[in-house]
Amino acid sequence: MIRIGVIGYGYWGPNLVRNCFEATGAEVACVSDLRAERLARVSSRYPTIRTTQNFRELIEDPAIDAVAIATPVSTHYDLALLALQQGKHVLVEKPLASNTDQVQHLIDLAQNRNRVLMVDHTFVYTGAVRKIRELVDSGSLGEIYYYDSVRVNLGLFQHDVNVLWDLAVHDLSIMDYVLPFRPCAVSATGLNHVPGGTENIAYLTLFFEGNQIAHIHANWLAPVKLRRTLIGASRKMIVYDDLEQSEKIKVYDKGITLNNHHNPEKMYQLMVGYRTGDMLAPQIDGTEALRCEIDHFLRCIQQQEEPMTGGAAGLRVVEILQAASQSMAQHGRPVELRLTTLEATA
Amino acid sequence: MIRIGVIGYGYWGPNLVRNCFEATGAEVACVSDLRAERLARVSSRYPTIRTTQNFRELIEDPAIDAVAIATPVSTHYDLALLALQQGKHVLVEKPLASNTDQVQHLIDLAQNRNRVLMVDHTFVYTGAVRKIRELVDSGSLGEIYYYDSVRVNLGLFQHDVNVLWDLAVHDLSIMDYVLPFRPCAVSATGLNHVPGGTENIAYLTLFFEGNQIAHIHANWLAPVKLRRTLIGASRKMIVYDDLEQSEKIKVYDKGITLNNHHNPEKMYQLMVGYRTGDMLAPQIDGTEALRCEIDHFLRCIQQQEEPMTGGAAGLRVVEILQAASQSMAQHGRPVELRLTTLEATA
Amino acid sequence: MIRIGVIGYGYWGPNLVRNCFEATGAEVACVSDLRAERLARVSSRYPTIRTTQNFRELIEDPAIDAVAIATPVSTHYDLALLALQQGKHVLVEKPLASNTDQVQHLIDLAQNRNRVLMVDHTFVYTGAVRKIRELVDSGSLGEIYYYDSVRVNLGLFQHDVNVLWDLAVHDLSIMDYVLPFRPCAVSATGLNHVPGGTENIAYLTLFFEGNQIAHIHANWLAPVKLRRTLIGASRKMIVYDDLEQSEKIKVYDKGITLNNHHNPEKMYQLMVGYRTGDMLAPQIDGTEALRCEIDHFLRCIQQQEEPMTGGAAGLRVVEILQAASQSMAQHGRPVELRLTTLEATA
Amino acid sequence: MIRIGVIGYGYWGPNLVRNCFEATGAEVACVSDLRAERLARVSSRYPTIRTTQNFRELIEDPAIDAVAIATPVSTHYDLALLALQQGKHVLVEKPLASNTDQVQHLIDLAQNRNRVLMVDHTFVYTGAVRKIRELVDSGSLGEIYYYDSVRVNLGLFQHDVNVLWDLAVHDLSIMDYVLPFRPCAVSATGLNHVPGGTENIAYLTLFFEGNQIAHIHANWLAPVKLRRTLIGASRKMIVYDDLEQSEKIKVYDKGITLNNHHNPEKMYQLMVGYRTGDMLAPQIDGTEALRCEIDHFLRCIQQQEEPMTGGAAGLRVVEILQAASQSMAQHGRPVELRLTTLEATA
Repeated sequence: MIRIGVIGYGYWGPNLVRNCFEATGAEVACVSDLRAERLARVSSRYPTIRTTQNFRELIEDPAIDAVAIATPVSTHYDLALLALQQGKHVLVEKPLASNTDQVQHLIDLAQNRNRVLMVDHTFVYTGAVRKIRELVDSGSLGEIYYYDSVRVNLGLFQHDVNVLWDLAVHDLSIMDYVLPFRPCAVSATGLNHVPGGTENIAYLTLFFEGNQIAHIHANWLAPVKLRRTLIGASRKMIVYDDLEQSEKIKVYDKGITLNNHHNPEKMYQLMVGYRTGDMLAPQIDGTEALRCEIDHFLRCIQQQEEPMTGGAAGLRVVEILQAASQSMAQHGRPVELRLTTLEATA
Repeated sequence: MIRIGVIGYGYWGPNLVRNCFEATGAEVACVSDLRAERLARVSSRYPTIRTTQNFRELIEDPAIDAVAIATPVSTHYDLALLALQQGKHVLVEKPLASNTDQVQHLIDLAQNRNRVLMVDHTFVYTGAVRKIRELVDSGSLGEIYYYDSVRVNLGLFQHDVNVLWDLAVHDLSIMDYVLPFRPCAVSATGLNHVPGGTENIAYLTLFFEGNQIAHIHANWLAPVKLRRTLIGASRKMIVYDDLEQSEKIKVYDKGITLNNHHNPEKMYQLMVGYRTGDMLAPQIDGTEALRCEIDHFLRCIQQQEEPMTGGAAGLRVVEILQAASQSMAQHGRPVELRLTTLEATA
Repeated sequence: MIRIGVIGYGYWGPNLVRNCFEATGAEVACVSDLRAERLARVSSRYPTIRTTQNFRELIEDPAIDAVAIATPVSTHYDLALLALQQGKHVLVEKPLASNTDQVQHLIDLAQNRNRVLMVDHTFVYTGAVRKIRELVDSGSLGEIYYYDSVRVNLGLFQHDVNVLWDLAVHDLSIMDYVLPFRPCAVSATGLNHVPGGTENIAYLTLFFEGNQIAHIHANWLAPVKLRRTLIGASRKMIVYDDLEQSEKIKVYDKGITLNNHHNPEKMYQLMVGYRTGDMLAPQIDGTEALRCEIDHFLRCIQQQEEPMTGGAAGLRVVEILQAASQSMAQHGRPVELRLTTLEATA
Repeated sequence: MIRIGVIGYGYWGPNLVRNCFEATGAEVACVSDLRAERLARVSSRYPTIRTTQNFRELIEDPAIDAVAIATPVSTHYDLALLALQQGKHVLVEKPLASNTDQVQHLIDLAQNRNRVLMVDHTFVYTGAVRKIRELVDSGSLGEIYYYDSVRVNLGLFQHDVNVLWDLAVHDLSIMDYVLPFRPCAVSATGLNHVPGGTENIAYLTLFFEGNQIAHIHANWLAPVKLRRTLIGASRKMIVYDDLEQSEKIKVYDKGITLNNHHNPEKMYQLMVGYRTGDMLAPQIDGTEALRCEIDHFLRCIQQQEEPMTGGAAGLRVVEILQAASQSMAQHGRPVELRLTTLEATA
């Protein structure tokens, strides 16, 4: 039985608590939050769970094996650091920390202490994203051309990070999981419309060594909620709409064909032909992602395995976010990613 | 009776011919195309219209008053130049020409010859876009925050221009018409996946002097057709989906409100409130845009008026496209727009 | 504090327990279910709630003030009877009982004992249906012409009632609430495709004294889930799609106009003109219906008021279902409704 | 070269003329209409086609081989009769005539004169309906359970027939083509809301000898346009939405499975299991239906073949419409179909 403490009972915390509570092989020992009124909710729903306004009490409790952190981004590093120092396994809400130095430090510490460090890249654990990974791995899509995602809605404005760190982080974690190549540079643009706020609308382009491109539109100020990803490839293309009840993923047997010989009669157009075939919406496993993720976290603790979304994944995503913020401050000037280079030279 | 000659009977030409044919006060005197097989189609449908494979014959025909040009972009300038030199009024498919120098030359020539020079910014003449302009002009949207457009589908690959010049030009012409401010710089990214081709996927951000941002995603290689524009503003927001049969425009009574005083209990979130009200889909005039446009062209000829989409509008749009291509070649490096500066200093 | 016992923890029971648990002024004292494994779920989620496999124990508990029944339809009457006999207030899942005699008996008993008898016509308590009622009451729709509803999906097959009693009952309860007139006869058709089962697909037409008609398509064997209602009227028309996240209700300014004078040129068509205007999607209160309903139930108990969905509403709905089953057995032969006649003559 | 005369240039006539005009092996010799203003449109668009206000002139013209009739239903019989008597091949807009006696007379006459009699059941010639037929014929759907169609919109009110004869006729012709069994009885309900009009909203149930049911909702007074058909079957189910641009047909790998043994723990539910798999949207041939239909008509004339939608199909559809009108007048009382019995005994 792994005993879990959850820090933060705001928007995401209740989901963590519910899934840890119902997981086999785990129990929620304690929940901490600075706000007494949030803790009252915990107690009303789960009378058996201990609560505290003092997160140190939770972190230092020797009876607790693992800590799940669901607090604002700016606090991730300090809390995860304390927890690792106390020898806890740690699951941190996305993004893992506020910059790559912090993430690297957490990775090193977890490795030294032989503890699991996992980042809550929730979408990686959805049936839809696992299906996309399966399709990419199978090679049936052909050569991948682009990844394009729109993730917009009205709210929830964050005060300590811009909209890329809040929304685009999902797409970056999905890309990190499903794409067989890594970005080498970014260009980002965005704007803040709220006095004292951070960018609430942002556009992020990722460049790759090969002939691929990726783009994310993240927006806290949109009149409608959209969650749509297009994956273009040479043989098949994917539309992934997370708001669809069923048919979240549609695989289109569509593409172009190129003609080699020149046709003088059609000099006005490139010799590009269009191929259109069936569309298949594969059945998707509907298990709640967080349920799969918590099970994975527990297994990694028990088996001493590296998580699918461990520190390295968290680091790659944070590096992109950091570069994007730099580029955005300079109206889209491209910024290179160092990690890709390091991996390539390693 | 204004006698019109149409050059080019490929994708768009047939629409021009049909609308000119049915317009009051005009007649189609001649159609030219390099391809005999296209001219055969003209004759089968319109036995009364003269055809020729020699565009010079059409342009030099003294009985023709106006020339409509629907050929590849790279030929726009030469054809429009010849026609203006022959004293014809000219309507050119979008974009007006391949660079700003060409456009400026055409503008000067039309002015000297006292002839109408109009660019076929078709969307400006749709009921939907006219309704958006009406909403913006009324002030009911409040302060405009952003303009975001997605215009993607499979094909038609152009050989002489990239996807921005082919698709984003529509959004630029709409923005030029409906927005009360002009962009001052752009950042664009994109990629070409077809050997020997131009960028078939592109992302274009426009910056403004004020606190606004605009973005266009144009793509020839998408599995589904999307035509969706979001206009974010302080009081109301618009979703314009051109693929909707009815309800092309939805006006959302949605937005955010800002609280000035600090609430220590809610320290985790900016003091941003969300406002949600009714949604209104105003009735849209369904008249075919090209019909309205041809009528406008004829009226400008008869009344010696400057068209809504005259040389100046064509110039502003081409300048953005030109800057976007430059930025795209440099992975998003921002490029300033000169015209805005000139207008501001003028 | 009203102490509630909930009988049945299958599909709907968990929703009842959750909402009663969170309601102000009430507490869930006990949950009963014949299946130990269902009770284990109660205990795991709500450790403070007592459970029992013996429903009599719950009903006879003097500390319990009100009983909510969420069991198969065939058991509603017996359980509600017992509960009323023990002096409990009773909330019964729809439909109230298996036939009109049973319902009448429950009504009489509740009246004699001065207890609240309420039927769980959930949709009546949704923001959407309350908005429709508001629109109808305001007179802005004009004369109502028809009510048409489609309620289909795959499953959940019931063993003791046909699909009308399971799904169409929702539409009948909505109609009972929003329409200002009562049906006087029905014609129904349907079919059973499962050996030993009841009709799993059914079509029900309702006739009215005036010039209105209503129709419901209910289906347990449909490949997609549909929940769409059209309300046709002379001035405005409503589309109510319960699966829409936002914009559940759309009010169309559409209709026809009739010309009195004859136009000999248009002899081929009736002199019917079409009127098309704006569409408005009013903001809908998103509070969970069951939350409002439980609050209403508690208030009726406290204030000794007659519920909006009391025995009389339950009776009218069951009479229609009963007549529909008769008509369905005779391939659509119309069957008159007695209650309407009685009300009319009363 | 088959020379065609078209009678009626109202709503459908222009489509007939356009497709006959463009068909290979045919030419449009003459168009007749009582309204001079309609004929003016013919001449403006097709200067080479002769026009006349006197349909007899067209029918009696010895140079005309075939006559296409696109006039109000009440005139179909007289015009087709005259044309067949003049030895013309005849294509009649749906429905073929106003009652079964008329249709039988036309069938007999065409047979005696050895002329093609074809009814314009347009949908039979669409790629979507041909794909459905293919799926049914392949047996991959399993046992067919039901056919359910909704065909509603605002207008076009007909003066000489009710909405079933105008809209449901499409569904009946599709069913006649794709289903491997024939209906044996009908029950219909409906209402007229326009003084002096016919039923503008109607519901039609079809019963079959086997365990199938079909239903059509036809409505001229709906705020939105809907064209959706559900086909339920034991192994796969189809959703056919004719308003979808692509993906008109979706084949769901969904259904139910029945358990034979009783599970006492699940006594509340029939032992019905749900099966959910992939969804496939097969590619559909997008050729305009009328183009295929005209080609088929021409081939039947040239090859002396019986059309897919010949007199027999027209007769079956008209018999159902006739019975439906009878049933509707009696509030849904079932009415048997004689032809099915005759075919069965033949």
